[in-house]
Amino acid sequence: MQIIELDRILAAIDRDAIVAALENGFRSYSAGKVQLSPVGYLDLGGGGDCHIKAALADAEPFFAAKFVNGVPANRARGLPVQDGVVILSNAETGAIEAILHDRGELTELRTALAGVAAARLIAKPGSRILGVVGTGGQAQRQAEAVADALGIARADVLIAGRRPEAARALAETIGGAATSIEDLCARADIIVTATSSREILIARNWVRPGSRIVAVGADAPGKRELDPAILASATVIVDSVDQCVDHGETGWAVRAGLIDPAAVRELGLLLGTPQDFGDGETVVVDLTGIAVQDLAIAKAVWTAIRERAA
Amino acid sequence: MQIIELDRILAAIDRDAIVAALENGFRSYSAGKVQLSPVGYLDLGGGGDCHIKAALADAEPFFAAKFVNGVPANRARGLPVQDGVVILSNAETGAIEAILHDRGELTELRTALAGVAAARLIAKPGSRILGVVGTGGQAQRQAEAVADALGIARADVLIAGRRPEAARALAETIGGAATSIEDLCARADIIVTATSSREILIARNWVRPGSRIVAVGADAPGKRELDPAILASATVIVDSVDQCVDHGETGWAVRAGLIDPAAVRELGLLLGTPQDFGDGETVVVDLTGIAVQDLAIAKAVWTAIRERAA
Repeated sequence: MQIIELDRILAAIDRDAIVAALENGFRSYSAGKVQLSPVGYLDLGGGGDCHIKAALADAEPFFAAKFVNGVPANRARGLPVQDGVVILSNAETGAIEAILHDRGELTELRTALAGVAAARLIAKPGSRILGVVGTGGQAQRQAEAVADALGIARADVLIAGRRPEAARALAETIGGAATSIEDLCARADIIVTATSSREILIARNWVRPGSRIVAVGADAPGKRELDPAILASATVIVDSVDQCVDHGETGWAVRAGLIDPAAVRELGLLLGTPQDFGDGETVVVDLTGIAVQDLAIAKAVWTAIRERAA
Repeated sequence: MQIIELDRILAAIDRDAIVAALENGFRSYSAGKVQLSPVGYLDLGGGGDCHIKAALADAEPFFAAKFVNGVPANRARGLPVQDGVVILSNAETGAIEAILHDRGELTELRTALAGVAAARLIAKPGSRILGVVGTGGQAQRQAEAVADALGIARADVLIAGRRPEAARALAETIGGAATSIEDLCARADIIVTATSSREILIARNWVRPGSRIVAVGADAPGKRELDPAILASATVIVDSVDQCVDHGETGWAVRAGLIDPAAVRELGLLLGTPQDFGDGETVVVDLTGIAVQDLAIAKAVWTAIRERAA
């Protein structure tokens, strides 16, 4: 059993390889080749929590279980907000091969790079302006990763959020521009939402027909960012039908009777096939996060680390 | 973050301290002071699996998440059947303090020592003969730990199981005697069942009035060892009402309409108070295993390791 600390993990990151691994993971999941463990959760109080996810995929040499603790109050203490590990075990013998002490970083990165996979699938050719709703760490990662993946200049990245001063700060950090959420919706060719909101942030009438939206924030019951009426008039793509109907943006729209779960399409069934969305077709990808992403990124990292060592 | 390997864990084991910690854990659980994560599970095929449990208790400085892989086919490969870790995190900051690479040993031990706590609670004074139904590793641990705790000589331990040759082998290992399950029930003052059976092993009419039984085997849906009619005529004590009604021996009796869940008493509410069971009162303790036991044993071990280091 090897323990791999964060510096070695970060040194082994190859974003293109991880996006490819994530896409492969989504395809395996949607093909019914992935077993997910029931999601574990502990409430640490004060907004802090512990999340546990595990996944096993057919024909993979190992499976992954991840533990991430997040404690927002650590910011005021000058301590890291997150700590965590990903455990990789041999799928045949159950022997633990490696514990990646990633401190939650691989979860942040796989979430951002799933945004890249989704954005690549739905972005219109020639998309020039990226709008990111959100001002936290995940918003920054999405802004940088999606802009780079789509060839969008940092100066053409719009940032908006619930706190204008935080939007200005993030815009400055990445070299983009801050604006309002409404203005962002009017101008962006592709929108990524990455907040922890529990209230609707994007109104139905702000969204132009033909908009492309990747909604990343609603990863737990109670969370939401989009008016469900947006989904009612859109093509809706999800990472997991089961999970998104339960607690994604999709869940809100299904519970409101606005969309039929049978009409929702799963990302893993579309990736790898060029999509022919209409110019006026609004497309929303609802990402709630599934453990096969943790398995995919951990596999990519561990494979790279072993190749370096060989 | 420290990694503690098995040799240091075993060197820090103090069985009396662990039994006390387990009893304290059961009391906290039954007092509603423990948060359990939904149990995680992956089916590795061929009888192998991955189990994930996590618990957080009020006023404890850390919480525990445990991960155990078990692959029976490893026996034929000459490899350890289990591997696993227990992760201890600071309850305030979420920082991972230690990973105990116990290879599943702490789960085996906490299960055996919960049997000790239960046996101590229900054994009649002067109990002289212990009967253990089961021939595997957990049966051996229960036989040794319960015999020692009750002051029963190893020669007075009866072993029975579904495979008589395995019962003879275990009896020889511990210095006890092999017999049939029926004979064991007729002679033992206290009975521990610790098999992986999915069929009834102990018939109703084999059990004398006043028998004391600790049932450890039925720790997952589908598992069972006792005729549910035994529970119908017994005082039933459980580690967790929720869990035992779902999948313990208790669950079978409740689903058969033989007992009322409201009449079941929880171990944590009885420990520490001398019980006045009648001489002819049959008492069954149904143990399905709860994550507070993992927290309790990990805390005891980690505390001992830190004290040694200080």
